[in-house]
Amino acid sequence: MTKAENVLIDGTWRPAETTGTFRAINPATGETIGPVFPVSSRADVDAALVAGRAAAEALLEVPPGKIGELLDRYADRMDQRSEEIAETAHLETALPLSPRLADVELPRTSNQLRQAAAAARDRSWTEPSIDTQPNIRSRYAALGGPVAVFGPNNFPLAFNGVSGGDFAAAIAAGNPVIAKAHSSHPRTSQLLAEEAFAAVQDVGLPAATVQMIYRTAHQDGTYLVSHPLIGATGYTGSRRAALALKAAADAAGKPIYLEMSSINPVFVLPGALKERGAEIAEEFQTSALMGTGQFCTNPGIVVLQDGEEAERFIEEMRARFEKANPTPLLGLGGLTSLGDSVKALETAGATLITGGSKAPGSGCRFQNTLLRTTGEAFIRDPERLQTEAFGNSNLFVVARDGEELERIAGSFEGNLTGCIYTDTGGGDDALYARVERQLRLRVGRLLNDKMPTGVAVTPAMNHGGPYPATGHPGFTAVGIPPAIRRFAMLQCYDNVREPRLPPELRDRNPGGVWRRVDGRWTLDDVKVG
Amino acid sequence: MTKAENVLIDGTWRPAETTGTFRAINPATGETIGPVFPVSSRADVDAALVAGRAAAEALLEVPPGKIGELLDRYADRMDQRSEEIAETAHLETALPLSPRLADVELPRTSNQLRQAAAAARDRSWTEPSIDTQPNIRSRYAALGGPVAVFGPNNFPLAFNGVSGGDFAAAIAAGNPVIAKAHSSHPRTSQLLAEEAFAAVQDVGLPAATVQMIYRTAHQDGTYLVSHPLIGATGYTGSRRAALALKAAADAAGKPIYLEMSSINPVFVLPGALKERGAEIAEEFQTSALMGTGQFCTNPGIVVLQDGEEAERFIEEMRARFEKANPTPLLGLGGLTSLGDSVKALETAGATLITGGSKAPGSGCRFQNTLLRTTGEAFIRDPERLQTEAFGNSNLFVVARDGEELERIAGSFEGNLTGCIYTDTGGGDDALYARVERQLRLRVGRLLNDKMPTGVAVTPAMNHGGPYPATGHPGFTAVGIPPAIRRFAMLQCYDNVREPRLPPELRDRNPGGVWRRVDGRWTLDDVKVG
Repeated sequence: MTKAENVLIDGTWRPAETTGTFRAINPATGETIGPVFPVSSRADVDAALVAGRAAAEALLEVPPGKIGELLDRYADRMDQRSEEIAETAHLETALPLSPRLADVELPRTSNQLRQAAAAARDRSWTEPSIDTQPNIRSRYAALGGPVAVFGPNNFPLAFNGVSGGDFAAAIAAGNPVIAKAHSSHPRTSQLLAEEAFAAVQDVGLPAATVQMIYRTAHQDGTYLVSHPLIGATGYTGSRRAALALKAAADAAGKPIYLEMSSINPVFVLPGALKERGAEIAEEFQTSALMGTGQFCTNPGIVVLQDGEEAERFIEEMRARFEKANPTPLLGLGGLTSLGDSVKALETAGATLITGGSKAPGSGCRFQNTLLRTTGEAFIRDPERLQTEAFGNSNLFVVARDGEELERIAGSFEGNLTGCIYTDTGGGDDALYARVERQLRLRVGRLLNDKMPTGVAVTPAMNHGGPYPATGHPGFTAVGIPPAIRRFAMLQCYDNVREPRLPPELRDRNPGGVWRRVDGRWTLDDVKVG
Repeated sequence: MTKAENVLIDGTWRPAETTGTFRAINPATGETIGPVFPVSSRADVDAALVAGRAAAEALLEVPPGKIGELLDRYADRMDQRSEEIAETAHLETALPLSPRLADVELPRTSNQLRQAAAAARDRSWTEPSIDTQPNIRSRYAALGGPVAVFGPNNFPLAFNGVSGGDFAAAIAAGNPVIAKAHSSHPRTSQLLAEEAFAAVQDVGLPAATVQMIYRTAHQDGTYLVSHPLIGATGYTGSRRAALALKAAADAAGKPIYLEMSSINPVFVLPGALKERGAEIAEEFQTSALMGTGQFCTNPGIVVLQDGEEAERFIEEMRARFEKANPTPLLGLGGLTSLGDSVKALETAGATLITGGSKAPGSGCRFQNTLLRTTGEAFIRDPERLQTEAFGNSNLFVVARDGEELERIAGSFEGNLTGCIYTDTGGGDDALYARVERQLRLRVGRLLNDKMPTGVAVTPAMNHGGPYPATGHPGFTAVGIPPAIRRFAMLQCYDNVREPRLPPELRDRNPGGVWRRVDGRWTLDDVKVG
């Protein structure tokens, strides 16, 4: 057997205890590329857990500034090696090198680390709360156990287990991370982990603050997330794997945050379609085909009201989808499952407008695909017609009238986003209110006149939503500081002597942490006596 | 079959679809008392869910002031009927009428409703977050589905499903409640539900805003918490029932908040014992025997360091426990399970110091009980020696030295609270740091020099803790506003036109809601343009 690459466990790049090996493929060509990577056995998982727990306890004693230093240092190292990282990610994912990987995703990723660094230093994310009269004080703090982070295939940098949003949030809270690389881009993950670990060494933090394994058997994944030594888990990926991990973590009482599926309905109301159909068609094409449609927030379903404008819009989209060259999907698995999903939608009654098959030539390409169904059919069988077709395939639902539009909105399951396009003159306002009322309860982020694919990394962002988009409707995976709080516990101090309190709960507030003191948010010291 | 009392479903006190009936007992005498109450079938659960969902959607359109009015009105009605309510609760629970029920728990309960009313009006609990540059805004908001609340036996008012903390929090967030009364105090729950429902009618809210059933089969409880129409669940009670509900809710992706068990370790360090052992003995007795030890935060285990003072303290407690008359437990079930737990502790190696059997005479009385074990034994078998003995039974763990004290602290599972008593001269400081480091990760609320039984209803309170004390370490069941956020979803608005935003996210802030605008907490309007 070929010697496989090393895993990063307990501060050492060392040979894995393997149960097998794998290699990446280049989805653009279908060719196997890069080195041989190990599938870790349970022994590796155990070793990472033990080292991670020790690191978690050691990190509790580290000043928050040190954590900020780590994240900044890592961001700098990532930027310095950006060319190699982006090129490797391009080879392993076939996502465009530029602008996507080199100019958008990588800078976003290092920027996210820097935001997390600032939050780790600033400490406002701990949400200190002080009630002076009863002398009760609380804040959020690290879990004292490592956080497992499972990254998805579609954002090899910004959501990578060893560099993405969950990673940054878990570290900022003061937890070590055990990253599970996605096996579609192992070499990218390796490069990132090298820089992350070098940053750990640069700043002198516990060596197991960052660990990484490439792949495990499914049962070792559920073992990891439910282990007594684990603190919590962050996962982004397919619903099936997510639900298996969730069941294991839930049964063990371990927090797990999942981002697992989303159709992201877009309602284009009649006035908007009439007013600026062509403009919306352009926006929709960009949003739908970006990254070959493999965004968590891809506008999977577009809901229109029956009429001439709707038919014109659909016809316009058919022409556009046929004209655009299909770009590669992320891998062979994605190619197969996209074909299966399109078939499932057809079986559920949707009609193919264009595409529907593997594109000719080498590599993982699927024809740009559009389907349509009626509102009536959708309301009758919303579950099957909400089958997620992850990739460059989108479904139109054509409603008979406003009432049916409203009922369609009420038939969606939990989603990350929902959009409503309306006219500027007010003609759509009444219908907007009816659709919004239904959609609002079913999506984490509601948009007006804007496609959902852009996810700004900003505090008020909600990259979350009701089940089954995620596992809990109250948390966001993007947006610092709120995303950090997921990987923390609430710690209350009752009558604890002042010098024994953590810095952010003491009377003086020299660091300028935002605190809620007697119900008022303030940067001031606590006045006592 | 005797006609059973009515359940409150969909705005009507109506006969239950029963699968059986039950009656309360007076634990002081063991006698059956009061009317016959129904065990509801699944048909009642279904009816409550359908009506609750409709009410949830209707409540979304109701101005927040109306919700505040309901909670205030209910508090007033509760106070007006306080004598009857407290007397009924006294009969059904044998908890002291005064001061406990009439002068402490009832005022605390109505005060909690008033705090929730203020929060519902003030809206700061929605934690509005506004990023002006990208125009992204978010807040917490009602779930759009009813919240099921299961109350425990030990606080018939302050944690009752139809009047307690979870009830107040769920309503304040704008959700209707389906209360499951605890079957040990059905008449108390009935009186409370009468006032709650009358208040709903007084202020003209949807009739199904408050519903109540008395009891169901276990499988109908799991059906309720996992039903597609449910919004979320709050539960306080035994671990066994909690875990069955949790499994069902988790599998359905429904949020559930559990408060299920806690031993609440108290460490009395050597200096403190030497300095003020007698004083601490007095505090411990009060805390341990209050409510016959049936507090979620009862100091179940006291950890001491071996020595003359420790033996003197234990001897003092033996004398005190023997001198105090055993007060009644909450019911026959509690009497049996307390006996079983004490036996289980003995089997695990603990030695009986005093008590250990049912007290003579009528009613549900158990002898005031103390047991002891060594630190070594505890560390060897922490799981069995942490068996919760719910009632007037407490365990001493005597450690050989400071190192063993530290290891004991590290052997506890998740708890609501942990206390450390230290001397005033600084002699205990080094040991404090070592014990605290371990305990801090294992408890929601850490106390110094104070017993855990008092739970102030104040924003910084954490009545929560790591599993298995609760189901998630980031949430508190007591403390307004934070407790409210549990029954809410995070709703983000991206590029949504200003007049379409909910009031707390608009530019102007006439209501004076605390909002995080561009990273700063403020009461000001948003400056745009």
